[in-house]
Amino acid sequence: MIQRMGAGSIRFCDPPVILSSCAVGGKKEAEGPLADAFDILNKDTRFGTGSWEKAERKMQQLALDGALQKQRLNYSDLDLMFAGDLLNQCISSSFSLRDKGIPVLGLYGACSTMAEGLCLAGMSIAGGAAQTAGVLTSSHFAASERQYRFPLNYGGQRTPTAQWTVTGSGCAILGSAGDGPRLMGCTVGNIVDMGIKDANNMGAAMAPAAYDTIRRHMDAFSLAPEDYDLIVTGDLGDVGAELLQILFRRDGVETASVYRDCGTMIFDRQTQDVHAGGSGCGCSAVVLCGHLLKELRRGSIKKLLFCGTGAMLSPTSTQQGESIPGVCHAVTIVSQEVREWTM
Amino acid sequence: MIQRMGAGSIRFCDPPVILSSCAVGGKKEAEGPLADAFDILNKDTRFGTGSWEKAERKMQQLALDGALQKQRLNYSDLDLMFAGDLLNQCISSSFSLRDKGIPVLGLYGACSTMAEGLCLAGMSIAGGAAQTAGVLTSSHFAASERQYRFPLNYGGQRTPTAQWTVTGSGCAILGSAGDGPRLMGCTVGNIVDMGIKDANNMGAAMAPAAYDTIRRHMDAFSLAPEDYDLIVTGDLGDVGAELLQILFRRDGVETASVYRDCGTMIFDRQTQDVHAGGSGCGCSAVVLCGHLLKELRRGSIKKLLFCGTGAMLSPTSTQQGESIPGVCHAVTIVSQEVREWTM
Repeated sequence: MIQRMGAGSIRFCDPPVILSSCAVGGKKEAEGPLADAFDILNKDTRFGTGSWEKAERKMQQLALDGALQKQRLNYSDLDLMFAGDLLNQCISSSFSLRDKGIPVLGLYGACSTMAEGLCLAGMSIAGGAAQTAGVLTSSHFAASERQYRFPLNYGGQRTPTAQWTVTGSGCAILGSAGDGPRLMGCTVGNIVDMGIKDANNMGAAMAPAAYDTIRRHMDAFSLAPEDYDLIVTGDLGDVGAELLQILFRRDGVETASVYRDCGTMIFDRQTQDVHAGGSGCGCSAVVLCGHLLKELRRGSIKKLLFCGTGAMLSPTSTQQGESIPGVCHAVTIVSQEVREWTM
Repeated sequence: MIQRMGAGSIRFCDPPVILSSCAVGGKKEAEGPLADAFDILNKDTRFGTGSWEKAERKMQQLALDGALQKQRLNYSDLDLMFAGDLLNQCISSSFSLRDKGIPVLGLYGACSTMAEGLCLAGMSIAGGAAQTAGVLTSSHFAASERQYRFPLNYGGQRTPTAQWTVTGSGCAILGSAGDGPRLMGCTVGNIVDMGIKDANNMGAAMAPAAYDTIRRHMDAFSLAPEDYDLIVTGDLGDVGAELLQILFRRDGVETASVYRDCGTMIFDRQTQDVHAGGSGCGCSAVVLCGHLLKELRRGSIKKLLFCGTGAMLSPTSTQQGESIPGVCHAVTIVSQEVREWTM
């Protein structure tokens, strides 16, 4: 059952369970501080395929198969799959899932896709449309660079506020019952645009959307940041994460003690030359499906607010002089031992 | 409440109602056989804006505002909005919905987006996540041509199997109660790829997905094609529609008497030079939100199976030699007077 809390916020009265997850990463991710939390790492940027685009779908297939295998599930056990990615026409998701006999609902939420998928998988399970549902997303640094920016061979200079697209894929399998971290509720994001036009500063473009969603989430459920062990945003990076905290400080709310950003967690910014941090659909997906869900299963994190952030721009919108709309979807995930947190 | 019928098919026990809809079209649509069914037609391909891309989002805004006004609803009455389009990074949807305070879940289902959105809006209302939800999508011939194929000035020749992207936007507003056509159930599509590689023959690429979904829908609900007054596919065009009927004939099932395709309905193929018919997210959206829902409200159609079809390719996947995955989502919509059709 689902309880509407107003303005895009809903509470799952019978919380869906994250039964399983799998995180796949590439070379730079293997050299980063969260390397141990990945299930599969491969230093070949093509993952044994002929192109970066094919590598990205290969990562999705590895993540899906890995997550299913942990629970001895088959493709036919999935009632619904929610999937999307950054490549034009979401080809990573369509091609990775073709001819598998899985009902697929395609998403586009830019880098918020994992959180958007969790909202929808949670709704579909809590609402009765599915018993088991998957969420799958990915990004690939080299495929993204040539689609959104320049061919790598061009050797373009990156600005200090630029972020590094994570090469990785995350898959989460949710069920109506079982053992594992549970989804307590979520807040679906509004599209917020504060007028940032610098396509190399997406953290700044997304921070107002993150603020809007987290604030609405806290209001809807009568919570404060310190009610969580951890609030993570997807890929605001250094710049966006700092801006988000400034926005909260204007309300007299201090978030520093519980707040982190997946984009600043996944790489070592001192040694890995990623400028403002990681980004991409894969960023929050692998940090959740690898690191955070492991911590939730272990109980070292008990109450997590997972906030996927997306910059809804395109090269064409930027060329036409538009500013960058942002979106953020927030999902409350608690460890299995948390039985009494009614929200 | 929702009843799972297996393999992506679900039944809405308390059927969500389509409270309102609005169809917006351009010049060619205004000259076509369904012109009278549109709410708004504009022969300016830029809709008063500075670019075709901005025109597409203007059409979405007109469709959304038009659908809301018919029910005297405001943006704040929408619990959730499901929106997507064909332009890279779905900019039509993100920009048309920015700063409106509506919780937005972005979709990518290629030309199946209206049907995908109806499935999800239906699930969210029947499952309790929303009381009122919208579905919004669009396409624009000129914006699509330059993104997917060639700049219009290039004057590229079109093959006989090519289709003409509809310039239009459709919006449907669904509610948990009220007067109007009702959603009885739906079947979410699998991604099916039979190896078609001709990006100028998307009807052939999508027909197997349409067959797969319609067959699964009929099986799940123990229905036959003649149980419907009308089965429509989204944009198979002449070629795909013929192929779909051939696929059914192999099973000994004759669909000719109840089957039509939105891509063949929206244009007069004798006089409008659209080759195999219309296509694009806007195609099935405007035929549904204009023509078909009017007929359902009038009662001249009582039982409709609305099957959105999508070709999940990108220019990059085609350049890399890939075949074209297709998807189809099917939704049963009945007129208000149909009270006893239990499915």
